[in-house]
Amino acid sequence: MRKEATLQELADYLGAELVAENGSALVSGLADLQQANSAQVSFLSSKSYLKYLSSSKAAAVIIKPEHAADFAGNKLLLADPYLGYAKLSQFFDPRPSRQPGVHPSAVVAPTAKIGINTSIGAHCVIEDGVVIGDNCEIYPGTVIAENSSLGDNCLIYQNVSIYSNVRIGHQVIIHSGTVIGSDGFGFAPTKEGWVKIHQIGGVVIGNKVEIGANTAIDRGALGDTVIHDGVIIDNLVHIAHNVEIGDGSAIAGCVGMAGSTKVGKRCIFGGGVLVNGHIELADDTHCHGGTIVTKSTTEASALASATPQMDVRKWRKAMVRFSQIDEMATRIKQLEKALESQLLSQQEEK
Amino acid sequence: MRKEATLQELADYLGAELVAENGSALVSGLADLQQANSAQVSFLSSKSYLKYLSSSKAAAVIIKPEHAADFAGNKLLLADPYLGYAKLSQFFDPRPSRQPGVHPSAVVAPTAKIGINTSIGAHCVIEDGVVIGDNCEIYPGTVIAENSSLGDNCLIYQNVSIYSNVRIGHQVIIHSGTVIGSDGFGFAPTKEGWVKIHQIGGVVIGNKVEIGANTAIDRGALGDTVIHDGVIIDNLVHIAHNVEIGDGSAIAGCVGMAGSTKVGKRCIFGGGVLVNGHIELADDTHCHGGTIVTKSTTEASALASATPQMDVRKWRKAMVRFSQIDEMATRIKQLEKALESQLLSQQEEK
Amino acid sequence: MRKEATLQELADYLGAELVAENGSALVSGLADLQQANSAQVSFLSSKSYLKYLSSSKAAAVIIKPEHAADFAGNKLLLADPYLGYAKLSQFFDPRPSRQPGVHPSAVVAPTAKIGINTSIGAHCVIEDGVVIGDNCEIYPGTVIAENSSLGDNCLIYQNVSIYSNVRIGHQVIIHSGTVIGSDGFGFAPTKEGWVKIHQIGGVVIGNKVEIGANTAIDRGALGDTVIHDGVIIDNLVHIAHNVEIGDGSAIAGCVGMAGSTKVGKRCIFGGGVLVNGHIELADDTHCHGGTIVTKSTTEASALASATPQMDVRKWRKAMVRFSQIDEMATRIKQLEKALESQLLSQQEEK
Repeated sequence: MRKEATLQELADYLGAELVAENGSALVSGLADLQQANSAQVSFLSSKSYLKYLSSSKAAAVIIKPEHAADFAGNKLLLADPYLGYAKLSQFFDPRPSRQPGVHPSAVVAPTAKIGINTSIGAHCVIEDGVVIGDNCEIYPGTVIAENSSLGDNCLIYQNVSIYSNVRIGHQVIIHSGTVIGSDGFGFAPTKEGWVKIHQIGGVVIGNKVEIGANTAIDRGALGDTVIHDGVIIDNLVHIAHNVEIGDGSAIAGCVGMAGSTKVGKRCIFGGGVLVNGHIELADDTHCHGGTIVTKSTTEASALASATPQMDVRKWRKAMVRFSQIDEMATRIKQLEKALESQLLSQQEEK
Repeated sequence: MRKEATLQELADYLGAELVAENGSALVSGLADLQQANSAQVSFLSSKSYLKYLSSSKAAAVIIKPEHAADFAGNKLLLADPYLGYAKLSQFFDPRPSRQPGVHPSAVVAPTAKIGINTSIGAHCVIEDGVVIGDNCEIYPGTVIAENSSLGDNCLIYQNVSIYSNVRIGHQVIIHSGTVIGSDGFGFAPTKEGWVKIHQIGGVVIGNKVEIGANTAIDRGALGDTVIHDGVIIDNLVHIAHNVEIGDGSAIAGCVGMAGSTKVGKRCIFGGGVLVNGHIELADDTHCHGGTIVTKSTTEASALASATPQMDVRKWRKAMVRFSQIDEMATRIKQLEKALESQLLSQQEEK
Repeated sequence: MRKEATLQELADYLGAELVAENGSALVSGLADLQQANSAQVSFLSSKSYLKYLSSSKAAAVIIKPEHAADFAGNKLLLADPYLGYAKLSQFFDPRPSRQPGVHPSAVVAPTAKIGINTSIGAHCVIEDGVVIGDNCEIYPGTVIAENSSLGDNCLIYQNVSIYSNVRIGHQVIIHSGTVIGSDGFGFAPTKEGWVKIHQIGGVVIGNKVEIGANTAIDRGALGDTVIHDGVIIDNLVHIAHNVEIGDGSAIAGCVGMAGSTKVGKRCIFGGGVLVNGHIELADDTHCHGGTIVTKSTTEASALASATPQMDVRKWRKAMVRFSQIDEMATRIKQLEKALESQLLSQQEEK
């Protein structure tokens, strides 16, 4: 950990009410209730962790006022302890800032513009016409192709590949191995095989976007692929050409999103969700992990499609039955008819 | 956009019949019917876009002869407007050609052979015995390990990793972050744990193949993994060792294909399809997105296995029922028997 | 192939009993029964390949003693021929060792410590405080950020990205494009959008671990993400923050594992499995390809959830029925009740 602070400093930083014997006690890090030592701060973000509270050795615990009575030690009273944890994670983040300036081994085109206090790492390649804002940190091995741009305060990790004509906003984080602006998967079918449709659109990424590792976001076929402000995207996500993702949506790992789909604001995608192309999902659509989304939604909704985890022996039988499900439905219908006709004949007999 | 052309030039390039007041009018780009301005060409590729036709501001529209009467403006009459669009996308592609020659920061082994008019980008590494054909463009940061080869007119984007003993044909495009020739996932189980099976085969990729971003194609265990001519592969696709993909097959994003599977010609895989190892899929097998393919096919077929997107409340009930599906089938059978025996006893009574 | 050996040398290397006319005959490689030429060794690992045995041209076949009578040619008798194959694959592996030393184009921080006989490839970047053991091979373009460490005898392929505070054991193999230590997907929701939770834990990887291409393993939020000894991980796998994978577990391609999940020892995950966060899987849990794992297991078990591959026409009907499955169950219940009340009324009539 890089920093020390007194409990009072942390209370001020968080806007929390401090309940402590000694506000000038020094703390030097952050840990969960079970792992925290007597120099670390912890937090109670959910009732399910109440059981770990009394035995925690933490120097102080960020806690809701209504739970204050449950902990005898030092407290930082805050309405949203999880947000308090997020803020302290930034405070105690040990990642060192990169040295500003261009590393001698980087290859930066004379026509590229690099902002002040920006760091360009070893073996980076910044091509013609690229514009990079102030206070950016570009880790080693990243390549930014011609005429793309980055705003201020961006953090791009090692070995990222950014194609040409990609416009990225401010405060964007992109993790290693991620590719922005690769060609969309567009081909015209002919008798002689697939004819490539050159992808002449670009990618536009808003402000405060975070993109995980080994994700790929394709450029548009004609217009742009657009990721709006505040979107968060996890690892190994595939965003196809001309997709549009609305403000504040969250996309977990291994999601695949096909071309020209339009996602609303504040949508949430669990891991491994697959989304069809050319559909529209309304604001606040939530998709459980593993859902295969094939139809548009017109209002906030919660979707799922996965089948349940079963013991393999039971599952083998279920597979057979599933392949017979249409026949099962037909047999239910036949049973209903037979029973009804039987009832009718009984009534006639009476 | 890089180029301008007259309508007559475009008609000649496309082999289209021009219907226009002024064939020498200049156009400078391509856009869809809704977005096109008066200097851009557009196209009508599907009846579903007919509604946008009359209000389009496009300088000219590529259109089937049978739809010519539906548009009052300039027309390029062509039997396959979508193919016409593909050809014009190449014509107007703004991507600049890379400077031929080896960038001073690239590391090229003395025994490597580089073709004429080929560009090796900054920080590329080309190892011993590698052969690269003519007119290739290798973007910065790509590494090609010893003894691998590329044909002519290949386009390899930044940060691609090609292992040793990978043979790639002509006119192949590989997008950023993609890995060709990594070890297949082969291990012998022992009581002391997994013993690695060294993967001593290679990878063979044919002509006119395109491979998307962050895809991985493993080398063969003994023989080669083979991607035949004209195959197109999207982003984040996993092709395991000793897979063979037939001519002209298309594999969308997030597909995973397990080892030693043999895919026929012109097969199509939607996004997120998973394919078992050691199976064979016949020519023209089409798999819907999200299908889990576990059995071979012996003739052209269309396959699917995904379950439908449902509201979460409805889905929760369906999950319970799905885990009871074998019992449901048994109860239907019991009902049929009970009804039959009842009918028999009624008949006996009569 | 790099090496030649006599049959007797191979028998000694494998600990096999040699049955051959001439133990000093030279062989120069390894192939399967069908492909082997008269200078190559082969093996019979499964009864299903018995049909290829008699016609094999192999110089010798590794075979179980009980199958010895089935092959007239030279034999290497061994209880586990598949393990024998694994050992010979190492023997005949043509991959050349990398030149020890630091390539002049690599950027190695003065405070980094590089072991003896270790190779650092072209354009690698090794940052401050990194420790790399002896006999490691780091391929070109790999970046290892500050204070991370590698044990001895590790093999890291090209364009791998290792973040800071990642501790990797001995004999670890990491394939190209893989990312170790990227931020976990942690954000606190607020009315103003997602607030990043800085990921201040690390990643710990044990000994004899192999990790495939374009995989991503996130660092922990507070504590570490932990991959124990002998784990094998395939391509395009996503391991989220604070996951723990027990000794000797195997994870096939395209698996996604959500945060804080704890996987036992010797677990096996087929391709494309998705695992929920915050669950525990007992030792020896096996998951079929495509399973969506949502619940913990408390003992060794075999799990599956995928639905079967169907012809699309049949599947369309099954989809409709699946969405009606709760109603189907209700109708079965109603039929049972109706039939029972009918039986009762018949009995009353009698």
